[in-house]
Amino acid sequence: MQHAASSAVVVAGWHRMSYSFGDQTYISQELEKHIRKLHDAVGNAVTQGRYIIFGAGSTQLLNAAVHALSPNNASSPAKVVASIPFYPVYQEQTDFFRSVDYRFQGDASLWKNYSETSTDRMIEFVTSPNNPDGQLNEAVLQGQNVKAIYDLAYYWPHFTAIPAPADEDVMIFTLSKLTGHAGSRFGWAVLKDEAIYQRMQSYLTLNTMGVSRESQLRTLQLLKVVLQGGKDMFEFGHETMKKRWEILNNTISMSKRFSLQKIESHYCTFFQKVREASPAYAWVKCEREEDKDCYAVFQAGNITGRRGSLYFAGDSYVRLSLIRSQDDFDLLLHKLNKLVYD
Amino acid sequence: MQHAASSAVVVAGWHRMSYSFGDQTYISQELEKHIRKLHDAVGNAVTQGRYIIFGAGSTQLLNAAVHALSPNNASSPAKVVASIPFYPVYQEQTDFFRSVDYRFQGDASLWKNYSETSTDRMIEFVTSPNNPDGQLNEAVLQGQNVKAIYDLAYYWPHFTAIPAPADEDVMIFTLSKLTGHAGSRFGWAVLKDEAIYQRMQSYLTLNTMGVSRESQLRTLQLLKVVLQGGKDMFEFGHETMKKRWEILNNTISMSKRFSLQKIESHYCTFFQKVREASPAYAWVKCEREEDKDCYAVFQAGNITGRRGSLYFAGDSYVRLSLIRSQDDFDLLLHKLNKLVYD
Repeated sequence: MQHAASSAVVVAGWHRMSYSFGDQTYISQELEKHIRKLHDAVGNAVTQGRYIIFGAGSTQLLNAAVHALSPNNASSPAKVVASIPFYPVYQEQTDFFRSVDYRFQGDASLWKNYSETSTDRMIEFVTSPNNPDGQLNEAVLQGQNVKAIYDLAYYWPHFTAIPAPADEDVMIFTLSKLTGHAGSRFGWAVLKDEAIYQRMQSYLTLNTMGVSRESQLRTLQLLKVVLQGGKDMFEFGHETMKKRWEILNNTISMSKRFSLQKIESHYCTFFQKVREASPAYAWVKCEREEDKDCYAVFQAGNITGRRGSLYFAGDSYVRLSLIRSQDDFDLLLHKLNKLVYD
Repeated sequence: MQHAASSAVVVAGWHRMSYSFGDQTYISQELEKHIRKLHDAVGNAVTQGRYIIFGAGSTQLLNAAVHALSPNNASSPAKVVASIPFYPVYQEQTDFFRSVDYRFQGDASLWKNYSETSTDRMIEFVTSPNNPDGQLNEAVLQGQNVKAIYDLAYYWPHFTAIPAPADEDVMIFTLSKLTGHAGSRFGWAVLKDEAIYQRMQSYLTLNTMGVSRESQLRTLQLLKVVLQGGKDMFEFGHETMKKRWEILNNTISMSKRFSLQKIESHYCTFFQKVREASPAYAWVKCEREEDKDCYAVFQAGNITGRRGSLYFAGDSYVRLSLIRSQDDFDLLLHKLNKLVYD
C-alpha cells in the first residue's frame, strides 16, 4: 500500500478508444521509453539498439517467441526444450496450440549432443533465475540451429543478484514479478533481431491486436512510481524476500525430513555488494524414503504447494511460494513449524 | 464525449493486482452480470442458461472458438470456411497459427454438398450483420459435423435491425463495435455447450491467463453507463449511422460509375418498428469495365478504402468505413462528391 496516491490512475471515458496510438502502433512509446529507463537504472538488461514488444503478460510472449523462432514450412517441426526442473507452462502451451511448426521435446540436457550437429531448429527455454529453484540458469544447448528464449521474469533485485545486464537475443519480462500486478496482464520482450521482432508483432496482431491500452496506461503509471523511488522498491523487495528465506531456512534446517535448494551468493551490480539469497520459491525435497509423495506430506500439514512432478522433477519435491502476502507467509511458517517439530 | 464524468474510471495502485478474482476465476462476475443485463435490455442474444467467457477483443475469441470446435487428434484437420465476402482475419488467423487440428478452406458455399455427408469436422464463420456488406447472414452449411461460429460484433441496434434474440451455439461480441472502445481489447462469447466453454477457457488460460483486469473494470463502468442511459446510446448510434448511410446513398446514386449494397428493411424488436439501414461499412462496386481496380480509383480520389480482394470478392469492390469520427465522415463525403461529379 505504499505510494497509494501516486500510483493511482484515472481513465476518462473517451481516453484511448482507438485500436492504435497516434503513430499507428499498438505500443505506447512513452511506456516503451520508461521500460528502457528502468532496465538502465537496474542494470539487468541491455536495451540500447534493441526492439521492445508488449504482450498480455509474459505468458502470451512465450508462445509468440516460440512461433517466431520456429521455421516456417520446414520438413520437421522445431524441437522445444527446457532444463528440468522447469515452469510447466512451456510444455503446456507448446502442446496445447499444436502447431505444425514446433513440438515440445522435454529435457534440454538430453539433446545436448544432438543439438551441435542437428539441422533441425531447436528452441531452448532458459529461466533465470529459475522457477522453481531460483538458480541463475544458462542455455544448455549449443549449435548453429539452437535459439534460446530467456524468461527473465524473476531477474530483478528482489529475487536475485544481478551479476551483469542480460544481453540475450530474446529476453522476456513481466510486470507480475516486478510490481506484483499480475492481473494487469502486461509483459514485454527485448529483442535483438528485427525479423524476430516482426514475427512476434504479427503473432500479437493476429492473436489479440496488441495489449489493452488500459494495462499500458496503468503500467506506465506504476513504472513512473518505481523510477521516482530510486532503489526504494527493490530494497524493500529484497529485504522482505531475504528475511522470509532466512526464517524458512532456519526452520527447515531443524529437520532431517526436509531439505531446501542452495543458492550461491553472487556480487550484485545493483546493490554493489555480495548479497544473500531471496528467491521467490522454496524448492523443498522430502528426504525420507517413505515420503515419496512430498506434496501429500505438506498437504497433510495443511500446506498447499505445487507437486515436483509438475516441474518434471519427481514427487519427492514440492514448490512453496514465498511471494504471497505477509499474512500468508506467516501462516505458512506456523504450519511448517508444526510439520517440522511434530 | 457524452457522459464524461460517469464513464471515467479511477484505479487505485493496489487494485486488482492478483491473477484471479475472489472466486479464483479470471472473470469479473459483476461484469458478466452486466453483459447478461445488456443483452436482455437490447434483446439481441439469449444468455439465460448460457456460459459467458471473456477475451482480448473478439479477435482472441475467434481463434479460441476454432480451437475449441476442432477435433483433437482426428485423422484430418477441421475445415474452416466462411461466406464470401468475409472478414479477412478468419483466414489470416487460421493460416497463421498453423495448428495440426484445423485448416482454412475458403468459401463456405463450395462445401455445401460435401458438408452434409462428411465425417470431417467443418467450422463455418458466420458474420451477422456481415463485414463488409452488412447483410444478416445465416450459416450456409448443414450437417452433423458442421459447427458455426457466429461473429455478432455488429449485431447491435446502431448497425442493424434486431429481428430476434440470437440463440446460436457459439456467439461472439466485442466492446469495440458496441461503445467504440477498440483499444480496451475486450470481447465476450456466449456459449451453449459446457465442453466448448471449458476448451475455450483452457485456450485463454494458456494464451494470456485471461483478460486484463483494467479492461474488465473499465468495460464494467462503460456498460453501467450504457444501461443507465436506457435506449439513449442505441438511438444516438442508429440516428448517426442512418444519416450517414442516407447521405452516402444519395451521393452514390447520382453516379453510374459506382453502386452500393442494398440492405433490406427488417422489423426491429428493439425499436419496435421497421427501421432503415445503418451499416458500419459501404461495400462499393465500381461498375465500369475499365475500373478493374476499384481501390485504385478511390485512392486516386484521395479516399483510402479496403480492397475487395481482401474479402475475396475481387477488385471491383472496395470497403469504406462509416464508423470513423464525424470529421472523417464529412471529409469522405467531400472527396466522394468530387469523385462522383468530376
